[in-house]
Amino acid sequence: MDIRPRDDAPRWQRVAYRVIFESDTRAGRAFDIVLLVAVVLSVLAVMLESVHDIAVRYGPFLRAVEWAFTGLFLIEYVVRLLVVRRPLAYALSLLGIIDFLAIVPALAALVLAGSHYLLAIRTLRLLRVFRIFKLGRFVGEGEFIVQALKASRYKIMVFLTAVLTLVVVVGTLMYVVEGGQNGFTSIPKSIYWAVVTVTTVGYGDISPVTVLGQTLASVLMVMGYAIIAVPTGIVTAQMAMPANSAKPAAPVAPAAPAFKQAVCPACQADGHRPDAAFCWHCGQPV
Amino acid sequence: MDIRPRDDAPRWQRVAYRVIFESDTRAGRAFDIVLLVAVVLSVLAVMLESVHDIAVRYGPFLRAVEWAFTGLFLIEYVVRLLVVRRPLAYALSLLGIIDFLAIVPALAALVLAGSHYLLAIRTLRLLRVFRIFKLGRFVGEGEFIVQALKASRYKIMVFLTAVLTLVVVVGTLMYVVEGGQNGFTSIPKSIYWAVVTVTTVGYGDISPVTVLGQTLASVLMVMGYAIIAVPTGIVTAQMAMPANSAKPAAPVAPAAPAFKQAVCPACQADGHRPDAAFCWHCGQPV
Amino acid sequence: MDIRPRDDAPRWQRVAYRVIFESDTRAGRAFDIVLLVAVVLSVLAVMLESVHDIAVRYGPFLRAVEWAFTGLFLIEYVVRLLVVRRPLAYALSLLGIIDFLAIVPALAALVLAGSHYLLAIRTLRLLRVFRIFKLGRFVGEGEFIVQALKASRYKIMVFLTAVLTLVVVVGTLMYVVEGGQNGFTSIPKSIYWAVVTVTTVGYGDISPVTVLGQTLASVLMVMGYAIIAVPTGIVTAQMAMPANSAKPAAPVAPAAPAFKQAVCPACQADGHRPDAAFCWHCGQPV
Amino acid sequence: MDIRPRDDAPRWQRVAYRVIFESDTRAGRAFDIVLLVAVVLSVLAVMLESVHDIAVRYGPFLRAVEWAFTGLFLIEYVVRLLVVRRPLAYALSLLGIIDFLAIVPALAALVLAGSHYLLAIRTLRLLRVFRIFKLGRFVGEGEFIVQALKASRYKIMVFLTAVLTLVVVVGTLMYVVEGGQNGFTSIPKSIYWAVVTVTTVGYGDISPVTVLGQTLASVLMVMGYAIIAVPTGIVTAQMAMPANSAKPAAPVAPAAPAFKQAVCPACQADGHRPDAAFCWHCGQPV
Repeated sequence: MDIRPRDDAPRWQRVAYRVIFESDTRAGRAFDIVLLVAVVLSVLAVMLESVHDIAVRYGPFLRAVEWAFTGLFLIEYVVRLLVVRRPLAYALSLLGIIDFLAIVPALAALVLAGSHYLLAIRTLRLLRVFRIFKLGRFVGEGEFIVQALKASRYKIMVFLTAVLTLVVVVGTLMYVVEGGQNGFTSIPKSIYWAVVTVTTVGYGDISPVTVLGQTLASVLMVMGYAIIAVPTGIVTAQMAMPANSAKPAAPVAPAAPAFKQAVCPACQADGHRPDAAFCWHCGQPV
Repeated sequence: MDIRPRDDAPRWQRVAYRVIFESDTRAGRAFDIVLLVAVVLSVLAVMLESVHDIAVRYGPFLRAVEWAFTGLFLIEYVVRLLVVRRPLAYALSLLGIIDFLAIVPALAALVLAGSHYLLAIRTLRLLRVFRIFKLGRFVGEGEFIVQALKASRYKIMVFLTAVLTLVVVVGTLMYVVEGGQNGFTSIPKSIYWAVVTVTTVGYGDISPVTVLGQTLASVLMVMGYAIIAVPTGIVTAQMAMPANSAKPAAPVAPAAPAFKQAVCPACQADGHRPDAAFCWHCGQPV
Repeated sequence: MDIRPRDDAPRWQRVAYRVIFESDTRAGRAFDIVLLVAVVLSVLAVMLESVHDIAVRYGPFLRAVEWAFTGLFLIEYVVRLLVVRRPLAYALSLLGIIDFLAIVPALAALVLAGSHYLLAIRTLRLLRVFRIFKLGRFVGEGEFIVQALKASRYKIMVFLTAVLTLVVVVGTLMYVVEGGQNGFTSIPKSIYWAVVTVTTVGYGDISPVTVLGQTLASVLMVMGYAIIAVPTGIVTAQMAMPANSAKPAAPVAPAAPAFKQAVCPACQADGHRPDAAFCWHCGQPV
Repeated sequence: MDIRPRDDAPRWQRVAYRVIFESDTRAGRAFDIVLLVAVVLSVLAVMLESVHDIAVRYGPFLRAVEWAFTGLFLIEYVVRLLVVRRPLAYALSLLGIIDFLAIVPALAALVLAGSHYLLAIRTLRLLRVFRIFKLGRFVGEGEFIVQALKASRYKIMVFLTAVLTLVVVVGTLMYVVEGGQNGFTSIPKSIYWAVVTVTTVGYGDISPVTVLGQTLASVLMVMGYAIIAVPTGIVTAQMAMPANSAKPAAPVAPAAPAFKQAVCPACQADGHRPDAAFCWHCGQPV
C-alpha cells in the first residue's frame, strides 16, 4: 500500500517523509546512518547489561542509555506515524511492527518486572542494517544474492521437506535403537539429535553409544555429507546462470526440466515434456 | 506393473482408484491432503507419547488417538487392496509395504508388549509427503533435484567408496596410534570416529589425545575439508548444466544427460527422453 | 616399468599374468572379485578381533581366519613375483609394497608380540577396491572425479598453504590469548584446535573460555565458513567446465587469468596479460 | 610508493635490492627460499618451546636458536632499510611492519619478562610463504583464487552482514529462552554460541537444554545449512565464469569482471585490465 504523503500534503510532511523513509537525498542518507548507529548502540547496551560483571558496575549507566534510546525511538515512531499517508498501513507493516516492538518492552518494564529482557527483540531493528546496502555499490550485489535465493526458493523448500522427513524418520529410529537412553530420552529429543548430526554441527551433548546406534549415525552422517551438496548445487547453479539467459531463443527454461503431468490417453505412459505434442512411448497425440 | 483397474471394472472401483491413487482430480487432491494430515498427526501422537512428562498426563488420550489412526489406516489399506487390479502387486510394492508396516505394530502390540514402539516406522509414511509435490508448481523443482541426483549417482557411489576406504584405513591407524585408549577401544569404534571427523560432525565423544593421534586427525580433517568439495562439485556441475546442452557438436556428454541425445530424424527436434520410442514433437519414431 | 611377461615366456606365466594383473578377461574379473572379497573379509576379521567382547569369545577362530588369509596372500604374493617379467620392479611399486606389507605383520607376530596389530595396515589393500571401478560403467565416472581433482591440484595446494598459515598464526595467537590454559597448553595443541575449528569439525575437547579467545574463535569460524567456499568453488568450476572447452578458438585458458610477471621497462607497471605486447599503463612495448 | 633504488644508486645497492626484494634472478629465488626456511625454523623453535616437556629438556638450546634467528632477522631488516630508496616507506608498509614485529619481542624480552611469548607474532612472517607462489607455475593459480575472492568481496560482505545480524538476533533470543542458564550466561556468550552453531562447528561447550531452546537451535542449524550454500555459490559462480565472457552482447556483467569490458577502438582486442589506459595488443589508447 502506498504510504507516501499526498502531493497536497503540507511541505514539512513531505520533506520529513523523504528524510525518514527514503535514502535518495543527502539528509535521508544521513538519517539512515544516524538511525543505524543508534540501533547498534542500543543493542550494544542491552548486550553489555546482560554480562553480570558489567551490569554490577555500569548497570545504572547502561539502563539510562537504554531509556534514552527508547525515548528517541518512541519519538521516531510517532514522527513516522505522523508523516505517512496511512498510519495504520505503516503500523501493520513488518518494519512498522518491528519499530513498535523496539519500544514496547522498555515501557512494559515500568509495569512488569522481568519484561525488561524483551528488549532483546530490539535486535530485530538490526534488520535496518540492510538499508545501507541501498547506499552505493552494494545494491546490485545484495540484489544478486536475494534474487538467486528467491529463484531457488521452491527447490530449497522441496529440499528442506526431504531433510525434515529424513530427520523425523532417523530420529524415531534412533530412539528405538538406543532404547530411550544415552540422551535419546524421547522422540523429539532424538529428532533434535538428528538435526544436530545431519547439519554436521555435532555438539556431542547427545551421541549414540550402542553399536547399532553408531552404525546408523554413521550412515546418517555420510548421507548428510552428500545431502549438503544439494542446496549448494541449487544456489550455485542459480548464481552461475548468465543474467541474460532469459532470451526468447531458449524455449525450455534451463532450471526446470519438468515433465507434463498428464498421462498418455492411449498407453497411460507419463513423464512427457511440458511441451510435448505426442506420446514418447506410443506416438499418439497427448 | 499396471495396477489400475480394468476399463470394464465397476464404476465405483475406477472412481475410488482415481481418488486414492491419483491426484489429478479435485477429490484426489483432497484425499492426498487429508491423508497427509492424518499421517502427520499420527506421527505427532507417537512422538508426544515418547516424552515422559506428556505420557504421564495425556497417555490414554494419545493412545486412543493412535488407535483411531491405526483403524483409519487399516480401512484405507483394505480399500487400496480392493480397488487395484492386482492386489498382490500393490502389497509388494515399496509404498504398499510401508502402508502395511504402518498398521502392523499397533496390532502386534495387542499380543506383544513393547512392540508398541515399532509405531515409529509409521514415520516412514511421511514419505507420502512428497506426493504433495505432485500438486502444483513443485513438480518441476522436485523433479529437477531428483534428476540431478540420479544423473550423479555413479559419481557419488565412486566418491562414497573412496570415503569408506579412507575411513577404514584412518580408523584402523588411529586405533593403533592411540593404543586402544581414549575412546578408541576397537577398530569399529575408531572407524565411527573417523566418520564423525571426516564429515565434520565432530561430536567430541571420542577425540585423539596423543600428539601423533592429533596430528593424524588434523590431516584427516583438512582432507575432509578438501573432500567435501567433491560431492558438491558433482551435483552443482550437474545442476548448472543447461538442459539443452546436448548439441550435436559434443559427441561424448561429460555426464549422464536426462534426455536422449539424438534428434528426431523427421523434424530434428531434440530433448527426447532416454527411453523415448517416438518424437514428442511430431510423433514419428526416433 | 613394463612388468608384463615377455611374449616368449611360458604359456602358464602369460595366462596367470593376464588373470592376476589384468581384468579384461572373464577369469581376470573373477580373480579381482575373489581377491576383493578376501581383502574385505580379512580386514573384517582384524576389525572384529579388536572388539573386546568378540575377541574373548571368537578370538581363536578369528586368529585362524587371519592366518588363513595371511597364507593365501603369501601364496598370491609369491605367484605375483613369479609371473611378472621384473619381480623387483613389482616388489618396489606402490601396490607391490602394499601387498608385501599385508603379509609381514602376521609373520612378524610369530617373533614379536604386539606387532600383531600392524595387521591394520592390511586395510591399505582395500585400495584395490578401486579396481572394480575398472569394471563396467564406473570407468568414466571415476576418471571424471580424478581428472577434476588433478586439474585442480595446484589451486588446492595454494589453498592448503593458505589454510596452514592461517591455522599456525591463529593457533599461536590463541595460545597467547588463553594463556596456556583451558586446553591450549602448547602452541602445537592450539594449532590442533585451530584445525578442528576452521574445518568446522569442532570436537569441543578444547574450546576457548576467555572473552577475547571466544571473540577470536568466532572470527576464525566465520572465516572458515567463507574459506570452505574456495575448494568447493575450485572443484566445481573444474567439473562444470565443458569437456571440449579446450578448443583452439579460446586463446586464453579460462582457468588461469594469469598476468605477465615482468614489469614494464618504461613505467615499471606490472600485472600485464601473459600475451600482452604493449604496456596497459604507458603504451610502450613490453 | 616506489621503493626501488634509483638508477644512479651504487651498484651493490641495486644488486642487493634485486636479490632481497625481487625473485626474478637466481640469487633472488635462492634468498627467498633461504628466508622461508629460516622463518619456518624460527616459528618451529617458538612452537616447540611452548610444549612443557620439550622446554624442560631442550629449553636452553631452543632459546639459543631463537636468539640466532632474531639476530639474523635483525641484520636482514637493517639491510632492507639500507637498500631501499625510501626506508620510511618500506618500514611503514605492511610487510615492513611485520618484519619489524618479528624482531621486537625477542629484544623486548630482555627488558620485560613474559613479552617473550609475543614471538608468536613472528608467525606472521609465514605470510612470506606466499612469495614462493611467485615462483613457477603457481602464479596463475594463486592469482586465480585471489581474483575470484576479490571479485566476490562485496557479495561476501553483504553475506557476512546478514550472518552477523542473524547471529545477534538468534543469540539474544536464546539468552531469553534459556533464561541465562545452561551456559547462555550473557548475550555475548549466546552470540558466541550462535556463531559456533551457524558455522556448523558445534563445540558443545554450550548447548541448549530447554525444549524451546533446542527447537530454536534446530531452526538455526537448518538455516545455517541452507546459508552455507551462499558463499560457496558466490565463489563458485565467480570461478566458473569464463575469463573471456565479456562479449559485447552483455551490457551489464552480472559480477565484477577482472578485465575492462570495452574493446580497443583501434584493433578490437578485448580483455583489458579495468584500469588500462592503453591496449595491450596494439598499444593505442583505450
